[in-house]
Amino acid sequence: MPRYKLVIEYDGGAFAGWQRQEDGIVTVQQVIEDAFAKFTETPRMHASGRTDAGVHARGQVAHVTLERTWHPNKLQGALNWYMRPHPVSILSVEEMPIDWHARFSCIGRRYVYRILNRRGLPALEIGRVWFQPSKLDAAAMHEAAQRLIGHHDFSTFRAAQCQANSAMRTLEHLSVERLGDEIHVHASARSFLHHQVRNMVGTLAMVGFGKWSADDVTRALEAKDRAAGGPTAPPDGLYFMEAFY
Amino acid sequence: MPRYKLVIEYDGGAFAGWQRQEDGIVTVQQVIEDAFAKFTETPRMHASGRTDAGVHARGQVAHVTLERTWHPNKLQGALNWYMRPHPVSILSVEEMPIDWHARFSCIGRRYVYRILNRRGLPALEIGRVWFQPSKLDAAAMHEAAQRLIGHHDFSTFRAAQCQANSAMRTLEHLSVERLGDEIHVHASARSFLHHQVRNMVGTLAMVGFGKWSADDVTRALEAKDRAAGGPTAPPDGLYFMEAFY
Repeated sequence: MPRYKLVIEYDGGAFAGWQRQEDGIVTVQQVIEDAFAKFTETPRMHASGRTDAGVHARGQVAHVTLERTWHPNKLQGALNWYMRPHPVSILSVEEMPIDWHARFSCIGRRYVYRILNRRGLPALEIGRVWFQPSKLDAAAMHEAAQRLIGHHDFSTFRAAQCQANSAMRTLEHLSVERLGDEIHVHASARSFLHHQVRNMVGTLAMVGFGKWSADDVTRALEAKDRAAGGPTAPPDGLYFMEAFY
Repeated sequence: MPRYKLVIEYDGGAFAGWQRQEDGIVTVQQVIEDAFAKFTETPRMHASGRTDAGVHARGQVAHVTLERTWHPNKLQGALNWYMRPHPVSILSVEEMPIDWHARFSCIGRRYVYRILNRRGLPALEIGRVWFQPSKLDAAAMHEAAQRLIGHHDFSTFRAAQCQANSAMRTLEHLSVERLGDEIHVHASARSFLHHQVRNMVGTLAMVGFGKWSADDVTRALEAKDRAAGGPTAPPDGLYFMEAFY
């Protein structure tokens, strides 16, 4: 029973999120599992974490356990062939020990959030960025972001539907940089709460617009109340970049 | 009669090129001219250069001459509003002297060509890159590219339908770099022949695959014959970045 690690890229705008749904809407998990079924057995996939509808991935990680042994490159080629024309791509396949688990062995996740900050609407980056025509102060956002790093109760940045037992998380890295017309927010942690990155980005945008100070961000965190945080940034700008093992 | 300079971004995959066609297919020029007609007069636009079907722009430049004077920001906002949902965006509008001309005043054009060079098909960059799963040697491509810089007869890299009087051009800059999974080819010149960048990229790819040497590129250039060059790279990876004045 060989186990394979898959690294996956997808355009989240085409899917109702990662997780297979019962009602027939298209999800990333379903597209990959259905591709397996077209040339071999139907496995059960496990991802490092679920992504919501509209959220992209450049390095999602999942595993499958198969009956048959495959050369990793053959498996990659067959999956990419049978998934067409869905915007999902298997970037690599690697055989792993049977006790290796995409979710439970994962010791860190890294996301990037892209904001397009210019007067003109996106033409090339539609659905791939959060478009903000009002000027954002990336340096102020970066400074405020440092208030969120560390071990905290992140209830202020947690979606109502979050299923985690605890809102305690350790945010390892949160930085904001301007790259031309774009602002990139980089976030890394062992794990995140549901909507945590998008809620932190929406809150930092309040700082970027000059409406909130860094102290306001500290107060929002300490309130441990979603109503004290900023708005939820849209999924379009969020990219799951990497899972660490 | 005020004259306005427009800087324009577009997703070339949605259009049959820049230039307005008689047969009703959608072009970038037509979408912008039609947007003008929806809120003011219909001007005649002039671009720094035409782009082919599928070729993208991050900084195309065009001008229009209007009867009425507008605040540049108002003009930008109205155009972007009336062009929706076409993937075209006016990035800036500026009033210029009446003798300024987007094409004839232009003293340089800059393009970037993006190749996605990895085993996995593009999911996020479909239509935005040339996908090449076989390993390309970017350093060898860069070395060979230097053979094309300077004042030459570029007949080897000129499309059969090119309307220029002469094939003599001065290539100012041609460089190749690897950025992770992507290879970027940067090209600058006062002007280019039709398909010149795509034909140079297709030829450099032969070097990247190890099939041609830099000397083969010199021989191809000296042959002054399209049949001696490499294939035409697809439009998907080509971006018109900037026009210089």
